[in-house]
Amino acid sequence: MSSSFGCALCAQDGGTLVWYGKVLRVVHVEEAGFPGYYRVIWNAHVAEFSELSDEARAACMAAVVCVERALIEHLQPAKVNLAALGNMVPHLHWHVIARFEWDMHFPNAIWGPAQRPRDLEQEAVVRAQLEATHADIRAALVKAETPDG
Amino acid sequence: MSSSFGCALCAQDGGTLVWYGKVLRVVHVEEAGFPGYYRVIWNAHVAEFSELSDEARAACMAAVVCVERALIEHLQPAKVNLAALGNMVPHLHWHVIARFEWDMHFPNAIWGPAQRPRDLEQEAVVRAQLEATHADIRAALVKAETPDG
Repeated sequence: MSSSFGCALCAQDGGTLVWYGKVLRVVHVEEAGFPGYYRVIWNAHVAEFSELSDEARAACMAAVVCVERALIEHLQPAKVNLAALGNMVPHLHWHVIARFEWDMHFPNAIWGPAQRPRDLEQEAVVRAQLEATHADIRAALVKAETPDG
Repeated sequence: MSSSFGCALCAQDGGTLVWYGKVLRVVHVEEAGFPGYYRVIWNAHVAEFSELSDEARAACMAAVVCVERALIEHLQPAKVNLAALGNMVPHLHWHVIARFEWDMHFPNAIWGPAQRPRDLEQEAVVRAQLEATHADIRAALVKAETPDG
């Protein structure tokens, strides 16, 4: 168990809030060159994915899947990248990132070396879809949180 | 849906086989500087995590958790990193990587810039635990595949 004292994701949302639920939240991340970059953040301070119960893990990955599906539908990425690293901030958060063949780092990880300059025109096309993407993420997560509702 | 034609993970194991199950396999990856590096590879050719059914996703993440728990118990890493990227090989595979404060890239992602040289002595200490780690992964996955057995 890591300490929550001084944890950035206990103190702050960690991005622009798209959805705040009972156990997790979804934020959009402002990262230059990656307009379709989201995080699914577990609200409680937990370091490792395997510390969650089976039920909590299922809820966590269901939210990751809601975000991934919205990205695929609205942004048509070449690939979606999922990652829970937490080396710097050991508070469980999933990176969910729409990747495109034109993005700076493709096919490298976004943490790897850049391959080309930014394509601001293509980024703007993605940005124009974000509002609809966020609306769909929210709708899917409302549904996921109230399966009988 | 991506094509399985020419897919490296359809043609090969993708590492040293630790476990081969009905729907997925676990391999140990020989990556210089990262002795505690595993992959959970979905046997069928599927590109995105969200293409799996709820049941398949649960089985997949249960295997990821089996590997993560074995790494935590046997290798005492500073953090476990999980990632499903697939930009180069779009066949669902989860990287499960034990990270250490002494490893070349910590706290960066392993795909990011190196911070220091390799520590071969520390790596050897980890390597000495791999046989026991593999045995535990296998035992946990046998149990996960036959819950009533």
